[in-house]
Amino acid sequence: MTPQTDSPASSAIQASPKEGQSQSLAELVSAARTAQRRLAAAGREARRKALVNLAEAIRRDEGSILLANRKDLKAAADEGLEGPLLHRLALGGSKLETLAEGVEQLVAKADPVGRRLRHTELDEGLVLQQVTSPIGVLLVIFESRPDAVIQIGSLAIQTGNAVILKGGREAAESNRILVGILRQALEDAGLDPAAVALVEGRAAVAELLSFDDQIDLVIPRGSGELVRTIQGSTRIPVLGHAEGICHLYLHADADPQMATRLVLDGKCGYPAACNATETLLVHVQFLPHLVQVAAALVAAGVKLRVDDAAAEALTGVEGVQPAVDEDWATEWGDLVLGIRTVQSLDEAVDHIHRHGSAHTEAIVTGDPAVGECFTQIVDAASVFVNASTRFADGYRYGLGAEVGISTGRIHARGPVGAEGLLTTRWLLNGSGQVAGDYGPSGRSFTHRSLPIENT
Amino acid sequence: MTPQTDSPASSAIQASPKEGQSQSLAELVSAARTAQRRLAAAGREARRKALVNLAEAIRRDEGSILLANRKDLKAAADEGLEGPLLHRLALGGSKLETLAEGVEQLVAKADPVGRRLRHTELDEGLVLQQVTSPIGVLLVIFESRPDAVIQIGSLAIQTGNAVILKGGREAAESNRILVGILRQALEDAGLDPAAVALVEGRAAVAELLSFDDQIDLVIPRGSGELVRTIQGSTRIPVLGHAEGICHLYLHADADPQMATRLVLDGKCGYPAACNATETLLVHVQFLPHLVQVAAALVAAGVKLRVDDAAAEALTGVEGVQPAVDEDWATEWGDLVLGIRTVQSLDEAVDHIHRHGSAHTEAIVTGDPAVGECFTQIVDAASVFVNASTRFADGYRYGLGAEVGISTGRIHARGPVGAEGLLTTRWLLNGSGQVAGDYGPSGRSFTHRSLPIENT
Repeated sequence: MTPQTDSPASSAIQASPKEGQSQSLAELVSAARTAQRRLAAAGREARRKALVNLAEAIRRDEGSILLANRKDLKAAADEGLEGPLLHRLALGGSKLETLAEGVEQLVAKADPVGRRLRHTELDEGLVLQQVTSPIGVLLVIFESRPDAVIQIGSLAIQTGNAVILKGGREAAESNRILVGILRQALEDAGLDPAAVALVEGRAAVAELLSFDDQIDLVIPRGSGELVRTIQGSTRIPVLGHAEGICHLYLHADADPQMATRLVLDGKCGYPAACNATETLLVHVQFLPHLVQVAAALVAAGVKLRVDDAAAEALTGVEGVQPAVDEDWATEWGDLVLGIRTVQSLDEAVDHIHRHGSAHTEAIVTGDPAVGECFTQIVDAASVFVNASTRFADGYRYGLGAEVGISTGRIHARGPVGAEGLLTTRWLLNGSGQVAGDYGPSGRSFTHRSLPIENT
Repeated sequence: MTPQTDSPASSAIQASPKEGQSQSLAELVSAARTAQRRLAAAGREARRKALVNLAEAIRRDEGSILLANRKDLKAAADEGLEGPLLHRLALGGSKLETLAEGVEQLVAKADPVGRRLRHTELDEGLVLQQVTSPIGVLLVIFESRPDAVIQIGSLAIQTGNAVILKGGREAAESNRILVGILRQALEDAGLDPAAVALVEGRAAVAELLSFDDQIDLVIPRGSGELVRTIQGSTRIPVLGHAEGICHLYLHADADPQMATRLVLDGKCGYPAACNATETLLVHVQFLPHLVQVAAALVAAGVKLRVDDAAAEALTGVEGVQPAVDEDWATEWGDLVLGIRTVQSLDEAVDHIHRHGSAHTEAIVTGDPAVGECFTQIVDAASVFVNASTRFADGYRYGLGAEVGISTGRIHARGPVGAEGLLTTRWLLNGSGQVAGDYGPSGRSFTHRSLPIENT
């Protein structure tokens, strides 16, 4: 298993907007590290200027971007790519304007770098701060959407990180021109363009994954399979997602109309999304209302895989099949829904913990105490009461840009915004203190909290 | 290279305080997961009660703990272990009382679990919170200090995590009795004792590292070599530390007396510590004062490895040797110090970035603007102005308990307290909202910040 599934084995790299120029991956990563430190040290104003340049360039160079994009689209059509994939690849319509506006929204935000998280007096004249800082050099692996180049590149600039981008082969021309625009925007702001680089081909990724002292974080945006393969091939930390096997649990007292609305939205809104509902858990006392929910699902084209008790409650409903054990662990990504009956809230939670992927879990209940209990005991990145699983999303959460949805438990969990690209540093300002002066027979620390006062 | 260097290849495990009882590692991990979910759901009061029990038991069972510890000490002495290692192994003197007091300090702290980090109204009647939550099941690998069992176990209970402990072979008897006391304290608080487990032998660690869907975080507390080996053998995220190659930079305007105090403390306070100073960088204009600093170091028994310019400034000083290139990348762990001359602040920072381990970096300067610049541009977990590198420590930072000092950049960086054992969950409380109702032609999100209000 190689870390990349959508491009041919090739070590071709294109790190510079100047066509044909190439450099070794080691040189590229080393240049990215140096450029990142300059970017971080340059301060907010230079990074802001680069983003302003970028938004301008996206609008100014629309013609040449679309020209490059049409080459990708033509090649993809020639290879027989179909509707949804071609749609993901296309940059026409309002997509470029939306990208430019997204960059401008980053410009308008408060600087995420250098924010104080802690502020403590250790002793008189010895003051500690914990401040947000760039992580360093990121490797982001993404698939067919070339929009991701601008979204990830602009977030990296805003957070003071360098980013090495590895896109899909089918978007090669679009990715190249967009990376060129990003690099020019940095250069025109007096920054080092090596902070954004593009690599192509599987072999490049395999080599980069061995640079664990040069690359600080890998962000694979693709299948759970891709994420696991990368986790198994590198010492570099990986911020990725696995499957979303999300449940909606209808408690005994669930309102049938609300239940119907939530499961329809959760299953049919965008069945391929990781936050789509895959299994409906039904309290045995809700079974008399299940036929009403099921009828609406079947009318929307959903195929149901149900356990025995649910099958009995749905006698006569079309499109119902008996469920098998594997169904409870399946991310359908399609208009298929498992339905399972449980005797209690505890049994529902046990099912969720056994079969779920700790992505997003929801309950429908009329009793706030039951909802509170559900949110207390369910171990998942997102836990909802009386809301569709589809709300698990960085934009809907108000995070601004979304780096991805993490199903890992450390660093960032659930929808991840710009803060997923930040770490912290501890800054200590003293006046000549030494540690040996403190202790049982010496000075004591005051450990006094000081105001945080971020602007 | 195996993941463990201090114990024989053996798969013996002792997961229960009842002697001789054994279970498979898969069963042990599965039981830890179930126990962890119960521990998290049980709430603050039960966890507090378990910690109160634990502090009582440490005092009550002092006799039997010391008896077990004496067996370890005797075996270690028979094998020829020397002074400092025996000292680390011993639980006599005030060590047990200190451990009991440490547990009581955790009891007195505010509950770290369930603290609100964000609180946002997405729309009327649709409110999002981000709250702190346990990570899940931790695997902690530590070396000869049996104190770590109580320190780590109590932190795990306080943060609602399960912990699988792998201690050093030489502390086997002490570790067993202490884990037994931890499990009893859980049981007496009505909690599931499987939340704390002990495993023994290298083979157990190797097998556990393959359980990447059951164990959420590995914390190796040992050498950088151990950390790297584990990072290369598992998909599980690793919170570990590498070397500490820390620098003290004396700027042109450094006060010679302050410089002397700081380098003496940084080098001689505890030379084996990861926050000890390994290299002194000296601005060329400070060279006339270097002889005064060096004389104090030599008087304290420090051997100096110096570059040509420093050698010239130190003509006639004893214990001075010419430095070789490898010296700049060496963690001496001993009374040896590299001294290198630089022409500017920028050259000092370049040296730090090239040779340092991004652990702790310090400057001595009389100019606050220079100090500010240093803290802005140095990329390290801790960056100090006019303070000894030895302050980089969880206790000194006021974090309470210390899980370790992380040289990783994500999740937790630098000294890590209880918050290193926490992740977050997103909780959404709605009243039947569906995602399909929002969008360009539908409802808009309000994304209004609400008060955080943690008690």
